[in-house]
Amino acid sequence: MKPVCLVMGAGAGIGGTVGARFAREGYHSVLCRRSDGEGLEKLVADIHAEGHSATGFLLNAADEGAIEDRIDAVESEIGPIEVVVYNLGAQIGDRTLQDTSYKQFEMGWRLATFGLFRVAKSVCPRMEERGKGTILVTSATAAVRGNAGQHSHAAAMGGRRMLCQTLNAQFAPKGIHVAHVLIDGPVDAPDTLGKMLGAENFQKFREAKGLEHDGLLVPRELAETYVHLAKQHRSAWTHEIDLRPFSDRPWWNH
Amino acid sequence: MKPVCLVMGAGAGIGGTVGARFAREGYHSVLCRRSDGEGLEKLVADIHAEGHSATGFLLNAADEGAIEDRIDAVESEIGPIEVVVYNLGAQIGDRTLQDTSYKQFEMGWRLATFGLFRVAKSVCPRMEERGKGTILVTSATAAVRGNAGQHSHAAAMGGRRMLCQTLNAQFAPKGIHVAHVLIDGPVDAPDTLGKMLGAENFQKFREAKGLEHDGLLVPRELAETYVHLAKQHRSAWTHEIDLRPFSDRPWWNH
Amino acid sequence: MKPVCLVMGAGAGIGGTVGARFAREGYHSVLCRRSDGEGLEKLVADIHAEGHSATGFLLNAADEGAIEDRIDAVESEIGPIEVVVYNLGAQIGDRTLQDTSYKQFEMGWRLATFGLFRVAKSVCPRMEERGKGTILVTSATAAVRGNAGQHSHAAAMGGRRMLCQTLNAQFAPKGIHVAHVLIDGPVDAPDTLGKMLGAENFQKFREAKGLEHDGLLVPRELAETYVHLAKQHRSAWTHEIDLRPFSDRPWWNH
Amino acid sequence: MKPVCLVMGAGAGIGGTVGARFAREGYHSVLCRRSDGEGLEKLVADIHAEGHSATGFLLNAADEGAIEDRIDAVESEIGPIEVVVYNLGAQIGDRTLQDTSYKQFEMGWRLATFGLFRVAKSVCPRMEERGKGTILVTSATAAVRGNAGQHSHAAAMGGRRMLCQTLNAQFAPKGIHVAHVLIDGPVDAPDTLGKMLGAENFQKFREAKGLEHDGLLVPRELAETYVHLAKQHRSAWTHEIDLRPFSDRPWWNH
Repeated sequence: MKPVCLVMGAGAGIGGTVGARFAREGYHSVLCRRSDGEGLEKLVADIHAEGHSATGFLLNAADEGAIEDRIDAVESEIGPIEVVVYNLGAQIGDRTLQDTSYKQFEMGWRLATFGLFRVAKSVCPRMEERGKGTILVTSATAAVRGNAGQHSHAAAMGGRRMLCQTLNAQFAPKGIHVAHVLIDGPVDAPDTLGKMLGAENFQKFREAKGLEHDGLLVPRELAETYVHLAKQHRSAWTHEIDLRPFSDRPWWNH
Repeated sequence: MKPVCLVMGAGAGIGGTVGARFAREGYHSVLCRRSDGEGLEKLVADIHAEGHSATGFLLNAADEGAIEDRIDAVESEIGPIEVVVYNLGAQIGDRTLQDTSYKQFEMGWRLATFGLFRVAKSVCPRMEERGKGTILVTSATAAVRGNAGQHSHAAAMGGRRMLCQTLNAQFAPKGIHVAHVLIDGPVDAPDTLGKMLGAENFQKFREAKGLEHDGLLVPRELAETYVHLAKQHRSAWTHEIDLRPFSDRPWWNH
Repeated sequence: MKPVCLVMGAGAGIGGTVGARFAREGYHSVLCRRSDGEGLEKLVADIHAEGHSATGFLLNAADEGAIEDRIDAVESEIGPIEVVVYNLGAQIGDRTLQDTSYKQFEMGWRLATFGLFRVAKSVCPRMEERGKGTILVTSATAAVRGNAGQHSHAAAMGGRRMLCQTLNAQFAPKGIHVAHVLIDGPVDAPDTLGKMLGAENFQKFREAKGLEHDGLLVPRELAETYVHLAKQHRSAWTHEIDLRPFSDRPWWNH
Repeated sequence: MKPVCLVMGAGAGIGGTVGARFAREGYHSVLCRRSDGEGLEKLVADIHAEGHSATGFLLNAADEGAIEDRIDAVESEIGPIEVVVYNLGAQIGDRTLQDTSYKQFEMGWRLATFGLFRVAKSVCPRMEERGKGTILVTSATAAVRGNAGQHSHAAAMGGRRMLCQTLNAQFAPKGIHVAHVLIDGPVDAPDTLGKMLGAENFQKFREAKGLEHDGLLVPRELAETYVHLAKQHRSAWTHEIDLRPFSDRPWWNH
């Protein structure tokens, strides 16, 4: 029975690519996303075509019990979850305070912060019992500084960053590796940035970033760091790491 | 008509003391707290006895509309809110992940993070129209690092810190001063620390901190810094400041 | 005998203004700067004209023994140094690595970092014996993030920030208050910004910041915060605080 | 001609081990250290015995011209320096301010901060011309917080961290990858921790950390992360990363 890599938020950008990369590493990747069943089937089919192992599930992480039930089912029907890639968020673009509704603000927290708490409540006891496990959390610059218009996103990501620290504080000594991965730059991802910009503008933006698009964070490349984190020996674990394209200014520079 | 200082979370520690201090500065202090009507009446009576001006309201900030209705009523019946002291949180002591319920985690967010968002939605448009205002947020070490057992508190405070930055980013140029006050040490406060430790242990703890108790953060003294922040000229505003007793180790030291 | 406020780096901007403000608070201000004896005399004369007390000294802080001898002389001839305002740095504007010489890099460290170490070696034992004292360090954004072209300045200020933390760690429990004041914005200071921009450009820049120039950090106003820090009761001390004009973006925002 | 990995500070702990690891990756490792020629010969011989390529040099990085001359000679006689591992520091253990001499404080800066500046002045123009290069800086917790007794070390490391940011800001867009590696825990290194504790205590300390010593940072394991950083695609570079043993508390926790 293969160990499982569970990806929460497996779109065509970071989530799906990292899931595929873990499949190549010998994991059975369980890819969960809210919508676009066709896109999900394609991700799974691509992994199978490479001779690797994966399953896809549509799942609304905001629904009561959806996360918990899925984890129970995976553990009993597929295999032990050794790696979680938590890749959910609710970036809604820049909005003034007036244009940010209570509902949006709550949804940001529900997906980005509370969702991770629920995943941890479900998987940590199992990982603790097995003496090992890895939780890789895709984070964003908004977790370390709050820009104008990011009321909902920054509050959710900032809370999640602290949650990662409390999880690490309790569970690292039990063998569970929690890592907070600060994605500090635009990602070459059609499902998120692509949708925010629109197809045509996204293509123009990509081209402006160089023929090889390496002025954007390329999911295929950053997936290598996710795998590296999961493979770090427990005598030398990373809790926080940033990632950005060489040509992009870090968040702290002007 | 006096300008109003609205205190959300006006217990016998920081909130009530800061409210009384602003009353001495010429504000009408509106003290809001969830329970202990008697204690609230005493706070208000003490302010009146000094010849200053205050009103108290019992209010559950987690209730729908409670914050918004109170702010509307204060603005129309008492005066313009020039200073908000946001002093609410839901510190529940150290609890393992297993012992932290979904409900507790959500309540932490609801009081510490969402409550501030709701206050800001109500007061910022008014302050922006008047071209001035001050929002002082009592924060804690948990906003900048997550210790074991602080899953709920750290996630809520970390989210709030980022929210303070996004509020500042949008509203500082409009004349609204948002300050995040990191309380990094034990406070000489019977309503919070006192209740957590129990009366007898609290008294022992105080005595261990010296006859003058100045090894604890003394609310009367830290209130001076709250007032100073509210009086800073807009050419030299502080967004983040820490406060701790001289004899206490800062959070970053071991 | 009045307590002494020793200002290292007393130009016409922050240093001189803070020195004058402490004189108004009842201190004898000792103003030290490297050059422009005339300007120094004017600062001292202005303080005297207000009926307060000050002395000025020309002193090159990079010279061996210059700091130590001055402190010895002040302590024996003028009075006990209760407050130090350390205001020295060697901002040389933006320079590429190639255009930053070994000598410049070393001078940055010598003035901004080593100079504070030397001051601390001289005054801390005296303050410790007296059980009280305050060291206020004027810092800059370069202490918390390194921008392109700031090789010398950022390395020096970053080192100084950590030195402030080690000094605080050792001496706060002995009653010595060390505060690191992050000046995060342009200061309305003819001796520093004025010289960097040239007189004419500086005037244009000031006017662009509004008739009252309060889009710049006004030394007269920020001096209030220096005095507040020195007056904080030891039960509620601040170690780090930022200051910027309301209309300026904090360093962490884009 | 093999690309060169230049290690400044190649002792029997991190430096030598990382150098050997890069040799296995196909680099010619140039190992530089101040003393113990025998130990250095052994490191080089061990690399040769594995069939890989290395040279060792004794070099006092505090000497004028020593760094620059070595880099010139390596570039002209051995090959292009593609990776620098900067591993020098001057940790002198905990000392009070009184017990930290001017000379020690300056030496801390000279080795940890100024030495990296000198290396960068020598290698960056070459790397920039070649359009690629990697500079990996071994750092320590003292770079992000200053504990009591760490006056010299913290000031030097804090300055170096900011220097890494300014180097990154200028050179990342030119293809030079600068990474700041926060070693946040005790390293299983006989040349540094071993010497500080003494042989017998070091052995006891190791045993207390578990039979496999993985409660200490094992150089062999952390070397994997150094190599990973050097191999990151430029579309997804890390500038800052922390490393610690699973069982150790991160610096921000109490």
